[in-house]
Amino acid sequence: MSDIQSAQRRGRGRRPAAEVRAAVLKAAADLLFDDGVAAVTFDKVAARAGSSKMTLYKWWPSPGVLAFEAYFDSTEHRLSFPDTKDIEADLLTQMTAFIRLLNDQGSGKLIAELVGAAQSDPALARALSDFYTGPRRQLAIDRLRRAQEAGQLRTGLDLAAVVDQLWGACYHRMLLFREPLETSMAKTLITNLLHGIAAP
Amino acid sequence: MSDIQSAQRRGRGRRPAAEVRAAVLKAAADLLFDDGVAAVTFDKVAARAGSSKMTLYKWWPSPGVLAFEAYFDSTEHRLSFPDTKDIEADLLTQMTAFIRLLNDQGSGKLIAELVGAAQSDPALARALSDFYTGPRRQLAIDRLRRAQEAGQLRTGLDLAAVVDQLWGACYHRMLLFREPLETSMAKTLITNLLHGIAAP
Repeated sequence: MSDIQSAQRRGRGRRPAAEVRAAVLKAAADLLFDDGVAAVTFDKVAARAGSSKMTLYKWWPSPGVLAFEAYFDSTEHRLSFPDTKDIEADLLTQMTAFIRLLNDQGSGKLIAELVGAAQSDPALARALSDFYTGPRRQLAIDRLRRAQEAGQLRTGLDLAAVVDQLWGACYHRMLLFREPLETSMAKTLITNLLHGIAAP
Repeated sequence: MSDIQSAQRRGRGRRPAAEVRAAVLKAAADLLFDDGVAAVTFDKVAARAGSSKMTLYKWWPSPGVLAFEAYFDSTEHRLSFPDTKDIEADLLTQMTAFIRLLNDQGSGKLIAELVGAAQSDPALARALSDFYTGPRRQLAIDRLRRAQEAGQLRTGLDLAAVVDQLWGACYHRMLLFREPLETSMAKTLITNLLHGIAAP
């Protein structure tokens, strides 16, 4: 019996799928943050997570997609969206956390490379929208809609466009200019958009 | 004497550098729009432009950089920034042309792939900022500053952030969501940002 098989069968038998999945995502995230995207191979992840490589092939279409899911799994809690009933304050809290995440430990560089690679890799592009951009945009839209219902935002807004003008502005600065994002940019973007830039 | 040498020496002798440069950029743009980025090789461009490959090596660090410059050289006139003294109307004119350009003949796909590749190619990233994002942002900032001086925009604005919230919003939609851009998005983005999204 191989090491991997013994790991699978250790204890009271086969581990539940959810447990294996969590171990795989953790192993992939560790490799990713320690050594970058290229270090996330099915071989290395399987060995580190004590899972079979077959499982990885079954669950993830490519190591890039696994790396992507691991990245967002490990950072999701840092990007949660508060609801204190004050949309301006809540946007500031969330966007400041978002910019800090991009600035930390090369996260910005990682996400820039993943978004970059997705432009010519359809599987990665799908993973990007399934695991990250789609769900995160929906969370933001949900919070913005509650603010609208509470009378804090104008009615009739295209809320996806609002997302483009807040978080999208940060991605633009990072992807097209490779300039560092200051956390103060959060307040600038929110103030501009909520109160307008036209002279009063 | 090779075909290329005869082409160079045809007529009254060696062609002026500006003329060769224009011919090279046109040849590269033709290849790029007909067959995509991968078709732009120094061999093919030199043959089509009747220039020496040595000249191309001397002037451009890589075929990708040449492709990039050719792209923007051929599209620049479509992105000129009007000044009718009405910033809202001028933004609408320019951004509508910008979105049309992205939608036309695969231009959006091309620029998405170039921006994507730039995330892991420092020479391409430099070309991107030297030939495109840098100069185009400066043109927008110049126009926005004149609007500020004319009393149409608030004072104290971070004008680079305004660029992030208008054109950057379009890039965000395209690069992170791969969703088609409607020309109506121009008016949405401009109205949101100029007049604010907070309830009155």
